[in-house]
Amino acid sequence: MAEENDKTPHEPVEDSLRQVMDLLARHKLVESLVHKQDMPRHELVEVLVHKQNLAELSKKLDRLHPADVAYILEALPLEDRLLVWDLVKAERDGDILVEVSDAVRESLIEAMDNRELVAAAASLDTDEIADLAPDLPSDVVQELLKSLDHAKRAQVEASLSYAEDSVGALMDYDFVTIRADVTLEVALRYLRRLGDLPPHTDKLFVVERDGRLIGTLPLKRMLVHDPEAHVAAVMSDEPVVFHPSDAAADAAQAFERYDLVTAPVVDAQHRLVGRLTVDVVVDFIRAEAEEDMLQLAGLKEEEDLFTTVWKSARNRWMWLAINLCTALIASRVVGAFEGSIEKLAALAALMPIVAGMGGNTGNQTSTLVVRGLALGIINDDNARRILVKELGVALFNGTVWGGVMGVVAYLLYQNAALGGVMAVAMLLNLLVAATAGYLAPRLINRTGRDPAYGSPILTTFITDSMGFFIFLGLATVVLL
Amino acid sequence: MAEENDKTPHEPVEDSLRQVMDLLARHKLVESLVHKQDMPRHELVEVLVHKQNLAELSKKLDRLHPADVAYILEALPLEDRLLVWDLVKAERDGDILVEVSDAVRESLIEAMDNRELVAAAASLDTDEIADLAPDLPSDVVQELLKSLDHAKRAQVEASLSYAEDSVGALMDYDFVTIRADVTLEVALRYLRRLGDLPPHTDKLFVVERDGRLIGTLPLKRMLVHDPEAHVAAVMSDEPVVFHPSDAAADAAQAFERYDLVTAPVVDAQHRLVGRLTVDVVVDFIRAEAEEDMLQLAGLKEEEDLFTTVWKSARNRWMWLAINLCTALIASRVVGAFEGSIEKLAALAALMPIVAGMGGNTGNQTSTLVVRGLALGIINDDNARRILVKELGVALFNGTVWGGVMGVVAYLLYQNAALGGVMAVAMLLNLLVAATAGYLAPRLINRTGRDPAYGSPILTTFITDSMGFFIFLGLATVVLL
Repeated sequence: MAEENDKTPHEPVEDSLRQVMDLLARHKLVESLVHKQDMPRHELVEVLVHKQNLAELSKKLDRLHPADVAYILEALPLEDRLLVWDLVKAERDGDILVEVSDAVRESLIEAMDNRELVAAAASLDTDEIADLAPDLPSDVVQELLKSLDHAKRAQVEASLSYAEDSVGALMDYDFVTIRADVTLEVALRYLRRLGDLPPHTDKLFVVERDGRLIGTLPLKRMLVHDPEAHVAAVMSDEPVVFHPSDAAADAAQAFERYDLVTAPVVDAQHRLVGRLTVDVVVDFIRAEAEEDMLQLAGLKEEEDLFTTVWKSARNRWMWLAINLCTALIASRVVGAFEGSIEKLAALAALMPIVAGMGGNTGNQTSTLVVRGLALGIINDDNARRILVKELGVALFNGTVWGGVMGVVAYLLYQNAALGGVMAVAMLLNLLVAATAGYLAPRLINRTGRDPAYGSPILTTFITDSMGFFIFLGLATVVLL
Repeated sequence: MAEENDKTPHEPVEDSLRQVMDLLARHKLVESLVHKQDMPRHELVEVLVHKQNLAELSKKLDRLHPADVAYILEALPLEDRLLVWDLVKAERDGDILVEVSDAVRESLIEAMDNRELVAAAASLDTDEIADLAPDLPSDVVQELLKSLDHAKRAQVEASLSYAEDSVGALMDYDFVTIRADVTLEVALRYLRRLGDLPPHTDKLFVVERDGRLIGTLPLKRMLVHDPEAHVAAVMSDEPVVFHPSDAAADAAQAFERYDLVTAPVVDAQHRLVGRLTVDVVVDFIRAEAEEDMLQLAGLKEEEDLFTTVWKSARNRWMWLAINLCTALIASRVVGAFEGSIEKLAALAALMPIVAGMGGNTGNQTSTLVVRGLALGIINDDNARRILVKELGVALFNGTVWGGVMGVVAYLLYQNAALGGVMAVAMLLNLLVAATAGYLAPRLINRTGRDPAYGSPILTTFITDSMGFFIFLGLATVVLL
């Protein structure tokens, strides 16, 4: 695990990126000169300049924190990225692979042979190996597991056995345990013998002989209490604990609520099996938030900005297909009223406004409901009140905006009845939108799926189809 | 600041919420029985039961962590929320007010008188007072400042002077400093005299006599090093530091990258002025992510789920107004082709598909570009490559989906030319969408605004208008 003082950054990482890109550009300029002028590639001066740029680049990279190198790799187009990756010292490969995004990691792993991959992964902690394993070729994983000692192999296999977004998949095995019946003085001597503590250690875990967790001993307390005191007297005996099968999202909320830095993970018998740290939780929170944003736009997974067209298209495929189907159905609603549109083409111009405003309103409601469901503050007892409030907002907005659009439609087409139809259709579709925005997430939630992803499609589908139906239907009845 | 062991949760907060709601329901049932049966309210048994429910509720709340009480308050409709708020012990009001969301905080503050507010806020740390101050009536803030001693008042005023999303606004003043020329033994004795360390203390800050920061001393190192060693020899002399004017978002990225728990904040002269802690950073990251999601749907700020219709409508106002304007302009594009639509009403049914698929494609590109801009991995050097890739994806998807829709249109209307127009229009609009999705965030970014909010509107506006224009224009030229 890369620690704070591993490579302390001396400048903003954006500046480092700029310098790396300059060095790459200089390097490529020299290369192209060598080619263009048809000079023999071994000509001394050129080769020196050439090598000098790469040497400087390599030195620059050596000085950077692994997370900063990862950042730079993500910002470089594929060929530059692989050039830089080649310049990174092999012993740092593992630390950097753990830091880069999944999509970029894939591109780096493709460029490495099995021997390099095993060497890079073997340098990592077991929880990091488990993070990396799903992205490695299976023969590399086999070889890697063989190279580990028994205890470490068991840890990696345990980590891999937990579901992706569970506490078990996020926890590490880097903790220090202590017995309750020793004095702080003895505990301090023990720590001094250890010589170093795992990253983020803010507390020791107090365990029984059989491994059961009975408390935690914050380092802070060790420092301020009398060394003669016993651990049992100073420890906190009701710490927040997690189980490997707990949802990572719940653990993240607990870290936020109770301001945790580390927390023990215990099995059903309350035996200590791992440790969750705030840095992993922060990464999880950030990754979840980004995934939500990406999925809202129909990106199945994070995309490497410089990936191939084919990989990128495949990533966006499903979403476009679903949207095409819903658009096609909404289009058939319009198709049913083609006779009316032939008679009054203004309907075709106005109908997207009714549908569009419904979509916007519906998604406002559904965003609030999705968030309330995610936080668990919406339940069956208070749900009805929320629906009533949303219908109230829709009634209000529908009256105001429907009124505005009714007047605009009247002014555009000098047709009072058309203006009236517009106003009423807007109001009705906003009420439909509030209902859809409220029901869609709750229905999807009942099926056990994440409402964040399906809700916008479903809501928009309903508001589009119903918007067209209400507006064109009303117009057909009233105007024609 | 509420600490881990302040009130350790013994059960999931959802269970606590359920129990609180049960007690409230029982309480209200008794109330309604008393009213309905027209029994004298003072009838002994009823009053006892009544009081018993509230007493139990009050006891339940006492046992909960402030963050859990905040969670419950957010999940309750206004009247229940205020009932529960009344039952919370006054001395806990401050801690809970700091934890609730802005919208809910507003509803609680409205229910308190000035004396209660001053008392609640006075119990908090200075950084927390500064958090709360913008939501308090100005006379309460004045009174509050008067009640603080000089040093604390200066801290609150300093905190309030920093921009909202700056490091200065997030930092606290809860740190322990030490001199470089003492031994660890002396430092340990000093800590023992202090008796307690501020929450999250993972390191001491090493300062010169004039307050300049020269290093940090992780507690871990104090524990494992020889007590005879000097602080100067053991400290880390190049810690990551922040300045009060740094953007909080940048500091949050640094906390993530370098896995920090706390970090010193220094002024231009490198004098220690504050401390940033991971719990505040986590809250900031979560709040930013939520704000992004809410703003994507056009919610100006977080909404209390149980707020009034009026407040809620006002919050969604601006977005709907902007969308109405863009929809109106797109509608005028269609209006220009009313003659063609009268002749071939099928155009009205098919045009939303062209516009809609463009909107989806454009927002996929813009989401990736917004994210790349936020992370700083898109710059002028690599931007062109991204545009080329996005155009490639659009060309590919446009050919595939345009082809599919062309065939569908042909089958629906038995009109080969119409199918051809559909296919070509889809392809062209997807190319427009990729360009718009790429340009919109970059243009908004240049104006200094956050591209996350404006990009979807601008992108959708372009893909709608151009989708209608390309499809109806092509149809008019080719078919009529």
